Amino acid sequence: MFREKIKVLDCTIRDGGLINDHYFTDNFVREVYRALSESGIDYMEMGYRSSRELCPPKDFGTWKYCDDEKIREITDGIESNLKLSVMVDAHRVKEQQFVPAEKSPFDMVRVATYVKDMDKAIELVNRCHDLGYETTVNIMAISKEIEPDMVEALDQLAESQVDVVYVVDSFGALYCEQVEYLVKLFRKHLPATKEIGVHCHNNQQLAFSNTIEGIIHNANFLDASLYGIGRGPGNCPLELLMGFLKNPKFKLSPILRVIEEQMLPMQKDIEWGYLIPYMITGMLNEHPRAGIEMRKTADKDKYAKFYEEIRDAEGSY
Amino acid sequence: MFREKIKVLDCTIRDGGLINDHYFTDNFVREVYRALSESGIDYMEMGYRSSRELCPPKDFGTWKYCDDEKIREITDGIESNLKLSVMVDAHRVKEQQFVPAEKSPFDMVRVATYVKDMDKAIELVNRCHDLGYETTVNIMAISKEIEPDMVEALDQLAESQVDVVYVVDSFGALYCEQVEYLVKLFRKHLPATKEIGVHCHNNQQLAFSNTIEGIIHNANFLDASLYGIGRGPGNCPLELLMGFLKNPKFKLSPILRVIEEQMLPMQKDIEWGYLIPYMITGMLNEHPRAGIEMRKTADKDKYAKFYEEIRDAEGSY
Repeated sequence: MFREKIKVLDCTIRDGGLINDHYFTDNFVREVYRALSESGIDYMEMGYRSSRELCPPKDFGTWKYCDDEKIREITDGIESNLKLSVMVDAHRVKEQQFVPAEKSPFDMVRVATYVKDMDKAIELVNRCHDLGYETTVNIMAISKEIEPDMVEALDQLAESQVDVVYVVDSFGALYCEQVEYLVKLFRKHLPATKEIGVHCHNNQQLAFSNTIEGIIHNANFLDASLYGIGRGPGNCPLELLMGFLKNPKFKLSPILRVIEEQMLPMQKDIEWGYLIPYMITGMLNEHPRAGIEMRKTADKDKYAKFYEEIRDAEGSY
Repeated sequence: MFREKIKVLDCTIRDGGLINDHYFTDNFVREVYRALSESGIDYMEMGYRSSRELCPPKDFGTWKYCDDEKIREITDGIESNLKLSVMVDAHRVKEQQFVPAEKSPFDMVRVATYVKDMDKAIELVNRCHDLGYETTVNIMAISKEIEPDMVEALDQLAESQVDVVYVVDSFGALYCEQVEYLVKLFRKHLPATKEIGVHCHNNQQLAFSNTIEGIIHNANFLDASLYGIGRGPGNCPLELLMGFLKNPKFKLSPILRVIEEQMLPMQKDIEWGYLIPYMITGMLNEHPRAGIEMRKTADKDKYAKFYEEIRDAEGSY
């Protein structure tokens, strides 16, 4: 599956940071950066650019803020063609500042948003575009949006400066037919100059296959992470995606090496992957938070009870 | 996704038995039987009917032979509409005997075969059909077969007594487009009176999505197993498939309960699921045996080295 326009973005540090409050060691981030650079992957997302007022530093690690200076410290001395991205939550924008792109270690700013916050997202995107950054808007929780609202948002985005618009399956609820439907809907409402991206969650072991489904329908920006790390069940595993893409510029060995050396030890400390509570929230199209909470309790493996609670709560409108 | 013709077959004991030489306790098999009966699943595969001459009982547990009397002992006293199946390897048929179906606890005999052994498979299928059993032929290693051989086999099967013909992705190598292609090819060469089945392996986290792909193209017999248990990476997880099918006759709670009570403890003793060595053999369209062997060694997590060895061996024709 070789298509030159396809770009792969690794979100290991950003989405993985949602499990450990963004406390990765500098060494870990540097080793991930090194491996991705060697592998020929296109983009690496270093974390969030969050407001220190809204998100106080006593509660979060370095990768919640991604100060330019910190990024330079990490990447210093490693040969690389990797582009760097940083994410901002549209509904949590406060005093975030960006220097002009040519003075920044970042190439791309990605704005995560719900449909309801689209105006804030577009304001930020246009500002970053004017500063010289590539930009994306990542529409979260898309499996809960009703179509007229989504179409209105897409029509607004069509008029904005954004380069890429992502389908984000926040709840890991989508099946292939729904991914096809959404990517085609995005394609229909966005001009050909804008690319479409997919960011899939692995609640139902569908993150990789849904990413393939996106590719088939001409999504060209693909998110993935090392060994699938990410909140709850995690994301599309980067190693699987590289195997499918078969782009001659990609090298798999550095990725497998950083998985064995860095991700396996990490998995002893923090949990992600296919677990029944996340399958249940995905199947019922719910946020994984109830699953994340129950995994911290003594009842963490009481799957049937958890299922019945969530199902019955859902049915009680 | 409700289609009345769809039948789900649980292969927990049969495919899972490939990891532990078929040494499941009677209690475990009984609890699985009870859960499947309560859940409304259509078929349960109890194991293999193997020749004791070719496969001596000192090397294997009960579920390698599945004697009729043993099956009656397990199911005795449990209310159930579950049909039972047993598998035979066409290339290992020796003195296997079947009593007439009405005197047997089994409803269905499934014959696993490579294309090259199709004549043996059909001989056995016709014999079992005449004894009153439902029958299937499961074409293994299909990702390595060349099309003229496969078409010849399908044309032979079209003339046989077989009820269901399965696409078996033994190496976990197929992507959705290839599943679509194969299911359509099977449909083209088999009369409408014969059903098509899919049995997918999870090397690349595609067993569930490839099963969905089969459903979309009118495969009506679907294999799955509890928590995905099976050799190497395992199979399509039954719990995920039930969530997708949304057939009102299915109950998920008994399945989640047997997973928490029986499968989680078992996973501490025997290994299955998404592991990088199986991803590598799947991606390279190879039998998982090299992965299974390396997982028994001290180098079991040396993924990059394993990848390079398999890849380079593959390139050395």
